[in-house]
Amino acid sequence: MTRVLNDPVDFADQAVDGLVDVYARYLTRTYGGVIRSGSTRPGKVAVVVGGGSGHYPAFAGWVGPGLADAAVVGNIFSSPSTQQILSVARAVHDGAGVLLSYGNYAGDVLNFSLAEERLRAEGIPAVSIAVTDDVSSASLDERSRRRGVAGDLVVFKIAGAAAEAGLDLAEVAELAERANAATFSFGVAFAGCTLPGERRPLFTVPAGQMGVGLGVHGEPGVAEEPVEPAADLAARLVDRLLAERPASAQNRVAVLLNGLGATKYEELFLLWNDVRRLLQRAGLEIVQPEVGELITSLDMAGVSLTLTWLDAQLEDHWTAPADTPALRRGGGIATRPRTPRAETGPEQARRDSAGPTSRALAGRLVGCLESVAARLHESESDLGALDAIAGDGDHGRGMTTGCDAALAAARQAVESGAGLTGALAAAGDAWADKAGGTSGALWGNGLHAAALALDESSLEATGPGSVPVARQAVASVAAARDLVQTFGKAQRRDKTLLDALIPFVEELERRVDDGDSLAGAWSAAAAAAVEEAEATAALSPRIGRSRVLAERSKGHPDPGATSLALVLSEAGRHLA
Amino acid sequence: MTRVLNDPVDFADQAVDGLVDVYARYLTRTYGGVIRSGSTRPGKVAVVVGGGSGHYPAFAGWVGPGLADAAVVGNIFSSPSTQQILSVARAVHDGAGVLLSYGNYAGDVLNFSLAEERLRAEGIPAVSIAVTDDVSSASLDERSRRRGVAGDLVVFKIAGAAAEAGLDLAEVAELAERANAATFSFGVAFAGCTLPGERRPLFTVPAGQMGVGLGVHGEPGVAEEPVEPAADLAARLVDRLLAERPASAQNRVAVLLNGLGATKYEELFLLWNDVRRLLQRAGLEIVQPEVGELITSLDMAGVSLTLTWLDAQLEDHWTAPADTPALRRGGGIATRPRTPRAETGPEQARRDSAGPTSRALAGRLVGCLESVAARLHESESDLGALDAIAGDGDHGRGMTTGCDAALAAARQAVESGAGLTGALAAAGDAWADKAGGTSGALWGNGLHAAALALDESSLEATGPGSVPVARQAVASVAAARDLVQTFGKAQRRDKTLLDALIPFVEELERRVDDGDSLAGAWSAAAAAAVEEAEATAALSPRIGRSRVLAERSKGHPDPGATSLALVLSEAGRHLA
Repeated sequence: MTRVLNDPVDFADQAVDGLVDVYARYLTRTYGGVIRSGSTRPGKVAVVVGGGSGHYPAFAGWVGPGLADAAVVGNIFSSPSTQQILSVARAVHDGAGVLLSYGNYAGDVLNFSLAEERLRAEGIPAVSIAVTDDVSSASLDERSRRRGVAGDLVVFKIAGAAAEAGLDLAEVAELAERANAATFSFGVAFAGCTLPGERRPLFTVPAGQMGVGLGVHGEPGVAEEPVEPAADLAARLVDRLLAERPASAQNRVAVLLNGLGATKYEELFLLWNDVRRLLQRAGLEIVQPEVGELITSLDMAGVSLTLTWLDAQLEDHWTAPADTPALRRGGGIATRPRTPRAETGPEQARRDSAGPTSRALAGRLVGCLESVAARLHESESDLGALDAIAGDGDHGRGMTTGCDAALAAARQAVESGAGLTGALAAAGDAWADKAGGTSGALWGNGLHAAALALDESSLEATGPGSVPVARQAVASVAAARDLVQTFGKAQRRDKTLLDALIPFVEELERRVDDGDSLAGAWSAAAAAAVEEAEATAALSPRIGRSRVLAERSKGHPDPGATSLALVLSEAGRHLA
Repeated sequence: MTRVLNDPVDFADQAVDGLVDVYARYLTRTYGGVIRSGSTRPGKVAVVVGGGSGHYPAFAGWVGPGLADAAVVGNIFSSPSTQQILSVARAVHDGAGVLLSYGNYAGDVLNFSLAEERLRAEGIPAVSIAVTDDVSSASLDERSRRRGVAGDLVVFKIAGAAAEAGLDLAEVAELAERANAATFSFGVAFAGCTLPGERRPLFTVPAGQMGVGLGVHGEPGVAEEPVEPAADLAARLVDRLLAERPASAQNRVAVLLNGLGATKYEELFLLWNDVRRLLQRAGLEIVQPEVGELITSLDMAGVSLTLTWLDAQLEDHWTAPADTPALRRGGGIATRPRTPRAETGPEQARRDSAGPTSRALAGRLVGCLESVAARLHESESDLGALDAIAGDGDHGRGMTTGCDAALAAARQAVESGAGLTGALAAAGDAWADKAGGTSGALWGNGLHAAALALDESSLEATGPGSVPVARQAVASVAAARDLVQTFGKAQRRDKTLLDALIPFVEELERRVDDGDSLAGAWSAAAAAAVEEAEATAALSPRIGRSRVLAERSKGHPDPGATSLALVLSEAGRHLA
């Protein structure tokens, strides 16, 4: 149980503050996470790792020479936002590109992929690699669907050492991919963990039983079995991993024996004896094993075993020196304090280039966001109730949080001289950063994409109200739709905001093509979005209770499409 | 809950095996614990730390250059035996003496003090220092009665660095004493831990409550309070420690924030923010804080805060480089592999010097031990039942385990040519090593002291049956009595084996003085011991149920005196 905290909302942030204070020699705080305090060899590929909090030493405990340049730190068991990842990656990029690596969970995939795309758009070479080592979470045929667990450490260590050795981004990425492909983990859980502020555990395992293959956030395992002697447990773990020994594997392996939090050191060292014997009996050479708490889940009880089948190059990087709060190999690595950098992000450039028309439009965006925010606050509890029927009930809260943050950011951007692109981009970033979840990431990054699709110089050349502005609006919402489709990995009628967004963009484009004013076209398109959202509401085969829901909610069981239609309608009223 | 184990009896041993395998670079196994794998600067004071298992990284995780030379590793939450301490200390002594340091618990005090005495008797300069940092366990006036908790680390680190710096034993001991006097810890517990093989926790804390000042083995605390926000908890811990700020203290402090096992890293880092703020607000400079799991208690939930008020010299040694499995400071410290040593202990010397009479007497000792062991096995359940009335019921088992081990060791000694002194010393050592507990330590070390009081050359000069042999027997049992009185810290009528031992020695001496044969004197003395044990049985004010007990057990409610009287009677039958 998690018992030491102040306000649960601040738990992850306060934990990082404390970590950085204790390890100031290694770590410096930056927005979104932590970066190395020490200098980095100029022209080195930056290795940025990350994920949710609650897994220390993953991920911030692994920042330092020879390992990661930075760690992005999300909330407890939650992906960091795209904006956190961007902030951290920009802070450590030094001209040679950025390797992003993280465990394979939907939220992390979404945000790290979005960040990768945006870094590239900014001219920063970036590659993102999801670690997929948990053999319980999918079959070997579906390797890319496996979750990432303790194998993170091996992949990050090898990538970090490769970057330190001066390899270029493609080479570092190739090694990280190779390390991931060679890495397999299997674990058991004896008891669940309790989220800060909660009184009951996130999940439970019956007394005397163990959840075989249970995930570090309580994701379903493969079986429940009685707790067994350590020798049998060792055999269970080793046998399962040896069963997936790659055909090409040599006999040298990196080995991690990981405790999840409440399964303690003596237990791990004791288990190690049997694990080692079995691996050696299988003819394997163990290379620099790590036995301890590597990826925890708060106070969860359980253990996992990780094997990485080494080739000569992987072994060189696995055994290379590293000097971080939680992992140290070899002697120290000399560094000097880092020189702080002036901020020269894309936002600054956008602010400097905005003309008067664009600035006027930015002011209207703020007014529009004010109306939308007010409307969302009115509807927050309805959206929450709608979401609660089939989801976790937080959709209303997520929308108001995101929109409030967007409004505040747009206001601040306008005050500091931004035009429409800058204000909308800032609004989108703030939304994604604060709202959280898939919906927040897609909303915010969609708005950001919409901003980038605008052409500031054309806005200035023609003035507001002209056809080109309407055409730019079409291009802008189409860009948002494309982003949501690409990264949301959903189709129309999958009960997502796409159910309303796709018909909206189609109708807007048709009306503008027909010569309608932007205000008129937008109203008609918003009406189409509402209609379509309602029409698809009762049709989805994906949610069992959708017919009941369709009646109770007057045809709006899809909270994502509903809230989008609501926002589009309100924005239309503001345009008129 | 402890879930990863094979046979609970082997838990601690198997855990050390695994630890040493994983950290072979640092650690080598020796009987009784672990020693450094690497070379040590010749002529360095050896720092030997230790205590029970279940507290990793205490104590074996702190062995390496700049910190301890060795750790003695007892069973779970149990003191190591005197023999384990001796074995480990002899293995690392390098001519400049040994500093023994450990947390202040009765079993550890007994065994480390006995070991200190015996090392000195062997010509190895030794000083033992008990760490007494837990402010909850006694008032400041009774500082020497306080328990040792996380402050162990500061004392050991400072002693280790001082030894590494080339200070002599007196200087190292003075620094360790000074560090201990300057060190104060205070903690709370949220939940108990479960011993390996047990199904229920060793102790519990009600849900939503915390045991303030609760000891790491569940020793009573000072109060039970509701769990409070981290900021309040920080204030509670800091305020309590600042209240004992020594008058002479400067403003620089070493700080440890320790998690007991299931209170995890994020919680500790979060709590650190508030602790740091409060310490800084009090005008203190924090020097190299450690935040993490330093002294755990298996999976116990809780935290403790430790402050050490530094002077310049203490600070130098606190911040000096160290390189151990669990604590690393500064760059690595170069070492070469240690050269293994041939065994040249005192036992070897004793074996080489025994004459034929002494060897014959050693053979009779084996016969006597056989009779005694048989008698103890017959009485094991009776002694257990007697002990269970006021104790934990393990006295019968302890006596048979000890006597069996003593018999086996004596047989082996005789087979390898030992005389009476060697066989009796070996028997005593084996008894103390295997029986465990206070009783085992006193019995075994008492026998060992009895052995050392014998004069081998006089035995040879006069032959068996003569007065001098009877006189030697008196000196021998008197030596045992003196050791038990000195180290057992009990008086006559305290319900210990002294109740029977003291009258036995008095009567034996009187009878021998009167010219009785040894066999006759022994029988009379044993009868006196039985009588006295029975007479004191009903008198002790220390055990409330002793009067009831006196009736139920026919006057033998003191199992220690009872078993001694039984052994003495049986030995007397064998002498006759």
